Amino acid sequence: MADIRPERVLSDLRTLAQFGAYKSGVHRPTLSEPDIAARRWFAGRLCAAGLDASIDGIANILGKSPAPGRKVLAGSHLESQNYAGWLDGPLGCVYALEAARAIAEDHATRHLGVDVAVFCDEEAHFGSFLGSRSFIGLVEESAIDGAVNPATGMSMREALKVPGWSGRPRFMIDPTRYAAFFEAHIEQGDALESLGLKIGVVTAIVAIWQYRLTVTGEQNHAGTTSMARRRDAGRELVRLLAAIDARFPAICGPRTVWTTGRIDLDPGAKSIIPGRAEALFQLRDADPAVLDRLDRELNALVERAHAQGVCQLALERISASTPALMDERLQAALAHAAEARAPGKHTRLPSGAGHDAQWLARKLPAAMMFVPSIGGISHHWTENTSDADIALGAQVFTDAIVDVLQG
Amino acid sequence: MADIRPERVLSDLRTLAQFGAYKSGVHRPTLSEPDIAARRWFAGRLCAAGLDASIDGIANILGKSPAPGRKVLAGSHLESQNYAGWLDGPLGCVYALEAARAIAEDHATRHLGVDVAVFCDEEAHFGSFLGSRSFIGLVEESAIDGAVNPATGMSMREALKVPGWSGRPRFMIDPTRYAAFFEAHIEQGDALESLGLKIGVVTAIVAIWQYRLTVTGEQNHAGTTSMARRRDAGRELVRLLAAIDARFPAICGPRTVWTTGRIDLDPGAKSIIPGRAEALFQLRDADPAVLDRLDRELNALVERAHAQGVCQLALERISASTPALMDERLQAALAHAAEARAPGKHTRLPSGAGHDAQWLARKLPAAMMFVPSIGGISHHWTENTSDADIALGAQVFTDAIVDVLQG
Repeated sequence: MADIRPERVLSDLRTLAQFGAYKSGVHRPTLSEPDIAARRWFAGRLCAAGLDASIDGIANILGKSPAPGRKVLAGSHLESQNYAGWLDGPLGCVYALEAARAIAEDHATRHLGVDVAVFCDEEAHFGSFLGSRSFIGLVEESAIDGAVNPATGMSMREALKVPGWSGRPRFMIDPTRYAAFFEAHIEQGDALESLGLKIGVVTAIVAIWQYRLTVTGEQNHAGTTSMARRRDAGRELVRLLAAIDARFPAICGPRTVWTTGRIDLDPGAKSIIPGRAEALFQLRDADPAVLDRLDRELNALVERAHAQGVCQLALERISASTPALMDERLQAALAHAAEARAPGKHTRLPSGAGHDAQWLARKLPAAMMFVPSIGGISHHWTENTSDADIALGAQVFTDAIVDVLQG
Repeated sequence: MADIRPERVLSDLRTLAQFGAYKSGVHRPTLSEPDIAARRWFAGRLCAAGLDASIDGIANILGKSPAPGRKVLAGSHLESQNYAGWLDGPLGCVYALEAARAIAEDHATRHLGVDVAVFCDEEAHFGSFLGSRSFIGLVEESAIDGAVNPATGMSMREALKVPGWSGRPRFMIDPTRYAAFFEAHIEQGDALESLGLKIGVVTAIVAIWQYRLTVTGEQNHAGTTSMARRRDAGRELVRLLAAIDARFPAICGPRTVWTTGRIDLDPGAKSIIPGRAEALFQLRDADPAVLDRLDRELNALVERAHAQGVCQLALERISASTPALMDERLQAALAHAAEARAPGKHTRLPSGAGHDAQWLARKLPAAMMFVPSIGGISHHWTENTSDADIALGAQVFTDAIVDVLQG
């Protein structure tokens, strides 16, 4: 049955939380001193578990199982957001380690192999998913040369030199070695908690469509320009954003989210009518049809405001990813394992956040499993999951991997 | 009749426009090299007109008439906004100079005295109306010590040392010397032009009520936080601003203006739900009853949004000036002069912008006269007024001063 050992899972997580401890969370940016120490410690734990572990030229860690046959690759990331939680990333790494250990410790399953991967910089201190993208062959050396942490000004090359990892070869995926990729993660939202559920089986990692809205009006004196004569770019932008917010609920999907993360009025002074206004607007959904519908409506709203002639409005789609669909067979294995360990306490749901699994899904059948986040809080030092939920999740994760490996 | 000489008015204005010329406008910040040169040149013109002219310890210029009896004080400012127009300020200075000259040149009026004042830094490169406030006794030496031009980092003390004006005594108004203060200015709006009028008689300089709107929500992940669970400070701010914009037209006065000059979302990143949002919001009107009504509605809208409980909203009134009322007798003199020179082509209107006259009005009966701005444009190098309108304005301005001096 490959029983996991809850106290070992919790102990490993708590040890990891000491690297860069901050209040009840961690501050462990990619390749910071505590991050380097955490990577070294984790590689040691992989070795202790009987895996052949090493760290590559982009600080990815790979622990390779000596077992014969096709293996499962499992893992996540170790670095944290700034002053953030202890579980975002480490939970998936320790679950993968525990699955490898539990499977190796059980006579019935010890012939099955689990490789453990830790992908560097999922949290984007230097770039965008550099570790997982490197692993599937999408990162050139020149991209590493150009990667800089904007918070510290340090280049990734310099940072990799500190522990002596710069110049090492980088691991590249061998898809023939693996039957599947599994990643566990905290939900980071409150869907599971609010429904009283314990396990989330991810159906897809949402696509993110990122837009820039630009409004051009006429900068003018805020005292001498009558309301009728104004071409106030800020006012037009506010009207448009309010119109989007009023319209979208009627046509969005059940889990669509949209966010205006930034607004800039130019020149941004109290007594000057803004001549220019800009907003960053983002849509996320796992369903391409929903995204298309909202994109069409967004364009229509912008065109309507533009046609009124007060200001010029422009909508630029800066980026548009496609949803990363999780493998149906693997979802079934996770749901089956969840049903056995926590009957009725699981659901399928999309992931609103990006994860390394979205890149691995390009090369392997991929799956993601969520455990509840208390209060839905993440990217904050108060992020937490109950010990019982952590233990249950580790067992369901391991069970599903065994199921897939036993094919 | 004290006839002004149009070619002399235009020639002086064109000469001034050469100090810091920029395209068809000027770039002449307070105490910049061209501003110092312009002040010296203008003081020379005052001397040439028979006035006893000098520059004081805050770069104000005062040209005193040798005529006996109560005099009129007239003037405006010489420095410009950055890369702005040639008439904003200089027009009023040259009108005052021309009034002094024309009145002194006419046998019938040469016993009447006009003092000419140029107030430093009306355009707020170092502070807020430092020159006119100094002249009425509201500026301590410590305020000058602390004044810094944020664009250059230069202190006002340093800047005053360059021409050798630092440490000079500062002129203080002697209210017993004057019957009235007159300031002429370009309208900076398009009310006169759009009505086909030539002269505006200012009834009041509007009050400015400046607010800070603060919305506190919960910063969260833009992918994992459902729309229902969000406490998006940016979205609440946009809704409130849209509600203000929808409501105010029904309850404002005919010339009320309101402006959102700045919006900040915190942290301002594309994938983070803003936990905090702030806006600078401004109201201007000459009628205290209108301002009170809009202030009450603004408070009510903020309270209503706050009561919905999604975010905390707070409204802070940062400053609230009172309208500066122009003297009725002086308004009548301007209207009478305008009617004589341009029958039916004048109107009374408030000034939406602040002017030195609002400070002088605390010590003297004060009046302001506007001439049309082509296209309503100001604070831009394309700012302009036709030569004919400039000439007509100078005559009406002089006629009104004669009227008042003849009592």
